[in-house]
Amino acid sequence: MQLLPGFRDFYPEDCARRNYTLSIWREVAARYGFLEYDGPVLEPIELYKKKSGGELVGQLFDFVDKGERHVALRPEMTPSLARMVAARERDYKKPLKWFCAPSFFRYEKQQRGRLREFLQLNCDILGDASPAADAELLALVIDTLRAFGLGAQDFVVRLSDRDAWMQFALGKGVAQERLLDFLGVVDKLERLPEAESRRKLAEFGVELEAVRSFIADPSAEAAKLQGILADLKARGLAEFVEVDLTIVRGLAYYTGLVFEVFDRGGKERALAGGGRYDGLLELMSDGKVKMPALGFGMGDVVLANLLEEVPAAKARRDTWLAARRAAEVYVVVAEETRRLEALGVVQALRGAGWRTDYALTAAKVGKQFQAAETLGAQFAVVVGAEWPQLKVKQLATREEHLLSPEGLPETLRTLSLAPTPEPPLT
Amino acid sequence: MQLLPGFRDFYPEDCARRNYTLSIWREVAARYGFLEYDGPVLEPIELYKKKSGGELVGQLFDFVDKGERHVALRPEMTPSLARMVAARERDYKKPLKWFCAPSFFRYEKQQRGRLREFLQLNCDILGDASPAADAELLALVIDTLRAFGLGAQDFVVRLSDRDAWMQFALGKGVAQERLLDFLGVVDKLERLPEAESRRKLAEFGVELEAVRSFIADPSAEAAKLQGILADLKARGLAEFVEVDLTIVRGLAYYTGLVFEVFDRGGKERALAGGGRYDGLLELMSDGKVKMPALGFGMGDVVLANLLEEVPAAKARRDTWLAARRAAEVYVVVAEETRRLEALGVVQALRGAGWRTDYALTAAKVGKQFQAAETLGAQFAVVVGAEWPQLKVKQLATREEHLLSPEGLPETLRTLSLAPTPEPPLT
Repeated sequence: MQLLPGFRDFYPEDCARRNYTLSIWREVAARYGFLEYDGPVLEPIELYKKKSGGELVGQLFDFVDKGERHVALRPEMTPSLARMVAARERDYKKPLKWFCAPSFFRYEKQQRGRLREFLQLNCDILGDASPAADAELLALVIDTLRAFGLGAQDFVVRLSDRDAWMQFALGKGVAQERLLDFLGVVDKLERLPEAESRRKLAEFGVELEAVRSFIADPSAEAAKLQGILADLKARGLAEFVEVDLTIVRGLAYYTGLVFEVFDRGGKERALAGGGRYDGLLELMSDGKVKMPALGFGMGDVVLANLLEEVPAAKARRDTWLAARRAAEVYVVVAEETRRLEALGVVQALRGAGWRTDYALTAAKVGKQFQAAETLGAQFAVVVGAEWPQLKVKQLATREEHLLSPEGLPETLRTLSLAPTPEPPLT
Repeated sequence: MQLLPGFRDFYPEDCARRNYTLSIWREVAARYGFLEYDGPVLEPIELYKKKSGGELVGQLFDFVDKGERHVALRPEMTPSLARMVAARERDYKKPLKWFCAPSFFRYEKQQRGRLREFLQLNCDILGDASPAADAELLALVIDTLRAFGLGAQDFVVRLSDRDAWMQFALGKGVAQERLLDFLGVVDKLERLPEAESRRKLAEFGVELEAVRSFIADPSAEAAKLQGILADLKARGLAEFVEVDLTIVRGLAYYTGLVFEVFDRGGKERALAGGGRYDGLLELMSDGKVKMPALGFGMGDVVLANLLEEVPAAKARRDTWLAARRAAEVYVVVAEETRRLEALGVVQALRGAGWRTDYALTAAKVGKQFQAAETLGAQFAVVVGAEWPQLKVKQLATREEHLLSPEGLPETLRTLSLAPTPEPPLT
């Protein structure tokens, strides 16, 4: 019995790391005023066919269900989001700032940074067409990565603009209906041999040199991106962004700003990517709802790889993990005849919020103390000869106290030396 | 474009309710010393065929993937858990106390309390065969429901024992290989017409009266359940449990204790159910790993229905939801020429952990204050004529302060009247 290729088991130590990622994602999104939403794991396949122009359809886990519906496991969130917002847009004030962080599924070749089931933070702003919204979203993607302990020496956001590419291509005589195919060639420019790129561009009547000089002179784009960059500078985030017109993004629906986030070392796949999709809601609602929108996705797999490589980020994560001990208090049953009294103590501690554990069955006192240490407990509460008093030992300092079971949870609170479990985020 | 039947969209207000459920589940499990784990959404179909004896196989969302693997969306957690533990049991000290709270998928008829995708808390104790482990798990299911504000007047845990039924059936001459079919008839006893039950039992050579008098006299079971009940009594939880031999549980793999949790009003389906499955790990590992185990599952759908019906529980949930406002601080851009300075203030507040929002584009000051109120902000920070000072208004008291941007996040901390966002759990 084996795990499917490209899927993961999360044993407790893995799950804690996953929860760290989720907790930072949620915390920073909330600070930015984003509200969490979610959709179903399974959607009708038409939802993806309608939108993406087919890129992701070839990677779908799709099937016909017992009710003869052709369905697919969600490969991304934007179609579900567009469906949801189109259905109830009147119920919400604009702009909507929404995020989610669920699992997605793509039948892809497994490789470093790519799995078939992965988590992805999705943040979107809907109902605002301004560069201010672009900047707000970019600030969020930057601050999310900073909250993991990553700095400007670790990652960079590369900005580009689909509109600029559209205008370039139309100016060169590329037909409107072939624009996406043209962008597909630009997207692969750095990965294909020069001769092949040249040949493919020639099919559109465009010379490689023209494309290269357009990319080399982002100043032509400065006017449009100026507002975004000034906004980010005012937040102290200028050092995290660069204009880079080689970025075009694979998906068909992007309209304006597009961006990708990379590690500075260039070792990993993109950490995040996104852009404007001002026409998608109109398309998804058959023209009923027109709403500008933009968003980004940040996967957990590449991010986890990078956190392992950056010592400051790894240290921050490990501090967070260490603060979440399995037990704070361990109740030692020193005399089996006092087991029922010990259970009462356990119950009172848990009821007051203490993470409390104990040996389910009779065990030597030394073994029980050992278990307390292993679980990372602060206190061992001994139920034994001292009853109706309790011997309480602070495991870090070896200090001992004789305490009454009455009010024990509150007394421990005053004795506690534990740091607050939340590390500073920025 | 519609949602599939039996699936849910979680708009922000729905998602907040879902997160409330998840947060209580996680909090109480952690207090009990349970560690979170998770597995993949997709598993090979053999995993379910091997274990369940087929009950759930008819409800699977299963298909053949692009790599010719016959796979299924997980309908329950126990097979994945058994697979995971069997693979790495030597890496963990016994007993393992693990929980998870992911989504599950069953192709069932939609009805009250039943959806095709649902969340389910799963808590399991592995590696301990004692009644003390049974009691610890039962205490956890009880305290989880209590943490939602439900009391002994709202729900009851009905205990039964598969072993007792096995012995009864074998004593009546039921063949070993037909035991599960026999239990299937007992399981439906309360739902089928008497004549039909009688006829079905006759196929096993058992009289309805014999079954009824066995159920009517749980004292025969008292010896075995005594330890469990004494343990729960010591924790002050006796009033939440009843012995009820009509409970047998549908799944094939249960061996000893089985239980289900019902609302006292009898209006809903089971809130939770579980039991011992001492033989499952051995079966799943082809005999390599023998480990006693027990666990329960608690779904989110029936629970949410009950929370709506119990005023104390609903009030507790609503307090939790109200404490999670979309923004704590709203930065009002009173003069557009100060927008960049305002962005610096926004950035500093967010960096210090304040949930902060502002108008992305120029808006009247009155509109901005209105937005601050709508989002539930405590403070409006006005960037305008007073610059380089800030006018800060406490929205609840209408009090105003003139503050420096330097150290603003800390100053607001000292002025804050907001209650801590965690309501007491018990």
